[in-house]
Amino acid sequence: MAFQEILGKSIDELQIGDTAYFSKTISETDIYQFAAVTGDFNPAHVNEAYAEGTFFKRRIAHGMLTVSLVSNILGTQLPGPGTIFVSESVSFMKPVYIQDTIEASVTIVEADPARNRVRFEAACMNQHDEQVLHAEGIVMPPKKRD
Amino acid sequence: MAFQEILGKSIDELQIGDTAYFSKTISETDIYQFAAVTGDFNPAHVNEAYAEGTFFKRRIAHGMLTVSLVSNILGTQLPGPGTIFVSESVSFMKPVYIQDTIEASVTIVEADPARNRVRFEAACMNQHDEQVLHAEGIVMPPKKRD
Amino acid sequence: MAFQEILGKSIDELQIGDTAYFSKTISETDIYQFAAVTGDFNPAHVNEAYAEGTFFKRRIAHGMLTVSLVSNILGTQLPGPGTIFVSESVSFMKPVYIQDTIEASVTIVEADPARNRVRFEAACMNQHDEQVLHAEGIVMPPKKRD
Amino acid sequence: MAFQEILGKSIDELQIGDTAYFSKTISETDIYQFAAVTGDFNPAHVNEAYAEGTFFKRRIAHGMLTVSLVSNILGTQLPGPGTIFVSESVSFMKPVYIQDTIEASVTIVEADPARNRVRFEAACMNQHDEQVLHAEGIVMPPKKRD
Repeated sequence: MAFQEILGKSIDELQIGDTAYFSKTISETDIYQFAAVTGDFNPAHVNEAYAEGTFFKRRIAHGMLTVSLVSNILGTQLPGPGTIFVSESVSFMKPVYIQDTIEASVTIVEADPARNRVRFEAACMNQHDEQVLHAEGIVMPPKKRD
Repeated sequence: MAFQEILGKSIDELQIGDTAYFSKTISETDIYQFAAVTGDFNPAHVNEAYAEGTFFKRRIAHGMLTVSLVSNILGTQLPGPGTIFVSESVSFMKPVYIQDTIEASVTIVEADPARNRVRFEAACMNQHDEQVLHAEGIVMPPKKRD
Repeated sequence: MAFQEILGKSIDELQIGDTAYFSKTISETDIYQFAAVTGDFNPAHVNEAYAEGTFFKRRIAHGMLTVSLVSNILGTQLPGPGTIFVSESVSFMKPVYIQDTIEASVTIVEADPARNRVRFEAACMNQHDEQVLHAEGIVMPPKKRD
Repeated sequence: MAFQEILGKSIDELQIGDTAYFSKTISETDIYQFAAVTGDFNPAHVNEAYAEGTFFKRRIAHGMLTVSLVSNILGTQLPGPGTIFVSESVSFMKPVYIQDTIEASVTIVEADPARNRVRFEAACMNQHDEQVLHAEGIVMPPKKRD
């Protein structure tokens, strides 16, 4: 089997400025499944009658659901499989509503080959070209096999 | 209906040192559902044959799944419904495996009543009493209704 | 389309003593999905480390999951589609564990044609021939089309 | 680890009249997942073309899904973790439709400290302030640790 050959980019194969994307429309089901896994039944996410009385007026997605689109990119594309997640800081800028289409992007902004660490910045935009999330963090890219 | 009266603790009702908990055993299904929602099909999470060849030797949970147990507490208990999430920084300390039981805790560490912001620290521990995650962040507690 | 012809047994077609069955093995995923839908993250159901310290020693299924196997029979077999559920009383006799195989049965015990109501009794047994649940209740069977 | 310290209210800590709530909007996905777990594919729940020809005109939620919101409260809030479910009687008063928001409440109405049993009453209301379900039952609250 070739499973062991699934491997993302090592630090030598990454360039400052490399960017990758992932996008999807967030469904009601996505939000309910996210609540299901995390136990986070905050009424802002799962109670429409409550949400109508809030500042946001409608149910909103869990913030971590949006953040997870960034992790998707890190673990599957840039750097990709084998990456070890060290740390991340996120700022929530706008809410994400049911049926919003979110595009996450990750850009490599610094590389420290001696410690095998790269710093990334990430953004999530909605279909109105509004930024809903900013993140930055540190990952360890996979090491090349000999 | 009383839906609008669902309300967490306002900044006046919070004390430095207040702590709340949420815990669950992470099932294989949790990880697969998390992949389903986020599109994060990193083989480290969903490919056992691949995972056997990695440093961790087995499939591991998505880091953001663990972080989301912290958000659960913030949005449902401390401060609770009506809380607005501003920012968070997380460090991943150890992997979470299928069938690990994770206890998340959130503690209020600073309050800025003038700006209605509190700073929290959060930790996730596994069933072996090992810390798997550290986080800190800023939330805006719900405002008391008049 | 023939959808409107899906129809259970009318009260004239039911006999005292009629019995029907449904059985399945309860998986960990069933329990986690039941928590997902109902928000019931009682640690007895989803926290193995906690459950080890309880009287039952392991995670147990939600009681209502077992009761729902009875509703399955009422709504799909006896009386079947078109049945209106009026009321039910249940007693929980033993816990249901992950991987237990439960057989639910429903028996018609009384019929009141004037009011179109039947009384049923129901039992759920596990794979060790132990009764885990007893129920009885009232349903209105579907009316025959002219 | 503090898992064993997760504990609801003992009978000494409960008062007649204590009430707790849980609410959520019932999604189509909730109903389909409930069918998935219980095998209850009654067309009233999962066949819209059939449902249009019924008295209710649309697909309705499984009655036991609504009842389970009551169990959620009993097992997580009042009395909370460690509670043992003895028996329950439910009456179904109105159907629950997809996108209805249901608020369940549980109130303690009797306590029998000698046998460690409490009787509760429960109601589920929809977003139009209509009662959809009434229940009452018996639970054994958790015993205080020494």
